[in-house]
Amino acid sequence: MRIVISGFGTVGQGFAEVLSLRSDLLNAGGGVRIVAVFDSKSYAVDENGLDPIMLIERKNATGSVGTEKLSSGIEVLDSVGYDVLVEVSPTNIENGGDGLKNIEHALRNGKDVITVNKGPLALKFKELNKLAEKNNAILRFEGSVGGAMPIINLCSENLKGEKITSIRGIFNGTCNFILSRMDGGLPFEQALKEAQQLGYAESDPTYDIEGIDTACKVVILANSVFRRNVRFSDVSITGITSVSEDAIALAADQNMVIRLIGEVSDTVLEVSPRLIPKGHPLSISGTLNTAKILTDLAGPITISGKGAGRKETASAILSDLIAIMDRRR
Amino acid sequence: MRIVISGFGTVGQGFAEVLSLRSDLLNAGGGVRIVAVFDSKSYAVDENGLDPIMLIERKNATGSVGTEKLSSGIEVLDSVGYDVLVEVSPTNIENGGDGLKNIEHALRNGKDVITVNKGPLALKFKELNKLAEKNNAILRFEGSVGGAMPIINLCSENLKGEKITSIRGIFNGTCNFILSRMDGGLPFEQALKEAQQLGYAESDPTYDIEGIDTACKVVILANSVFRRNVRFSDVSITGITSVSEDAIALAADQNMVIRLIGEVSDTVLEVSPRLIPKGHPLSISGTLNTAKILTDLAGPITISGKGAGRKETASAILSDLIAIMDRRR
Repeated sequence: MRIVISGFGTVGQGFAEVLSLRSDLLNAGGGVRIVAVFDSKSYAVDENGLDPIMLIERKNATGSVGTEKLSSGIEVLDSVGYDVLVEVSPTNIENGGDGLKNIEHALRNGKDVITVNKGPLALKFKELNKLAEKNNAILRFEGSVGGAMPIINLCSENLKGEKITSIRGIFNGTCNFILSRMDGGLPFEQALKEAQQLGYAESDPTYDIEGIDTACKVVILANSVFRRNVRFSDVSITGITSVSEDAIALAADQNMVIRLIGEVSDTVLEVSPRLIPKGHPLSISGTLNTAKILTDLAGPITISGKGAGRKETASAILSDLIAIMDRRR
Repeated sequence: MRIVISGFGTVGQGFAEVLSLRSDLLNAGGGVRIVAVFDSKSYAVDENGLDPIMLIERKNATGSVGTEKLSSGIEVLDSVGYDVLVEVSPTNIENGGDGLKNIEHALRNGKDVITVNKGPLALKFKELNKLAEKNNAILRFEGSVGGAMPIINLCSENLKGEKITSIRGIFNGTCNFILSRMDGGLPFEQALKEAQQLGYAESDPTYDIEGIDTACKVVILANSVFRRNVRFSDVSITGITSVSEDAIALAADQNMVIRLIGEVSDTVLEVSPRLIPKGHPLSISGTLNTAKILTDLAGPITISGKGAGRKETASAILSDLIAIMDRRR
């Protein structure tokens, strides 16, 4: 299985590292090798396979994953024989950016695609799935929602026989960390600063705290699990910037906490801070993600796991890769 | 897909009901029909398909699922063409009983088997899997651990790329209900009586409260997820009969609860009441099952769901049936 990695930030490097850790597992499927990789500025190609650890070292030493100057990702894709594109470039929620173009190009050529890039999925879910189907390609995206928490494949494979009536969950660890710290009496600004110091929040935290990231995930769940045809602009979004210390204190008086909840069903598509009773599965503290899936036969199923992180997101990509290897065998 | 159902108690009836509810889904796979069914006394065969609702009505009206007197399940299996045996007769932990014989017979003939019968799995896991492999048959058993909580397939499929280092969980809803009621101040005997009145505990509750049921599940997890080769007799078992009101009160003083925990890893195989901090995922109250799965890449993943119930267990069987249909397509 010949892989191209597009994007070599935290997730791309994590995936390369995981590939090197799992050589035994991956060799069993006829061998997995990275035949090309590119970031925003550079690329490297080797039909015989690039050494994942060397790539990480070069990226860390020089800031570039490759030795050649990149003109476009599509040119790299066209220059090499490959089976799977792993698209992990930064999310662009405006127009999908180059990530979207690369995914479309790969699917159009019948190549399988694994992505955790929420932009293309939130903007063009239906189109991308049609393109995949038409070209007999597989498109998988477990890591795009919930990081290492396996919610997409849990719903679409293990629970395939269920009628899923709703999913409510915490899909952004940064917001949950901030709200958990506010439970302890910290004001919003201070909790945010702490999240930034610990590396949980970006220097520009808009994407997380305004609920945009959670909304992208809600769209992906709506389109994949509920087979709806919705876009990012369809989501009713309220972030956590307006959650005051007073509101947190009032909630605590009633034995409740405030959590940023994404909810999706056949009719609902919402992101908002909500009152959750302490002890409820959705009252968890810290950076974990969790989701409560309501089904008609199995009843409620709750899952939680690490929503982000280098190895954690890479593990979701690995699970998609193994599923593709199984299907293509 | 032609199905034989062996056993027509709560789970068998629940599965028949679910088949009738999901006719659309199941017709999509070329059609699913029940070509034979038997319980301990009777059987019915129809190559064109038996009506699931009629079977449930007959069982309720007459106590027998069939109109013919059963001499042996194997005779029924030999008399009809079928693809999948759904073995849901009562668990026999002494020697596996007729359930084990029927499973062996089906696998030997290259038929796929779905079972929730913990006896055969806890006693002969390795042998049954070898038999399946040798005869190119599929053996699935999602409902045998955790009911509707999809832990088996989650670990062996979604988390296939992970090194799972341990699983700790609550695998018996009856014990958890009793311990939860004891948290509220009820003595053991009274909590047990309440569980019996609500239908959560059998009139002879030994199997649950002595930890035997949990031990069977621990064995199944050890053999399937950890690929160990252990038997029921290898498990270190302590039930909940010795958990006193004093112990519960002492735990509460330290902000802890007592829960019956099954733990399995490469080296551990244990069932025992343990102190769990309140708020920990394993501190849940009521009849839910839950499991905390530790992995090397994804970190901890926690899942919970209904551990028992007619439709709930049937939903696990349905998920196995859909997986078999996908694989055989």
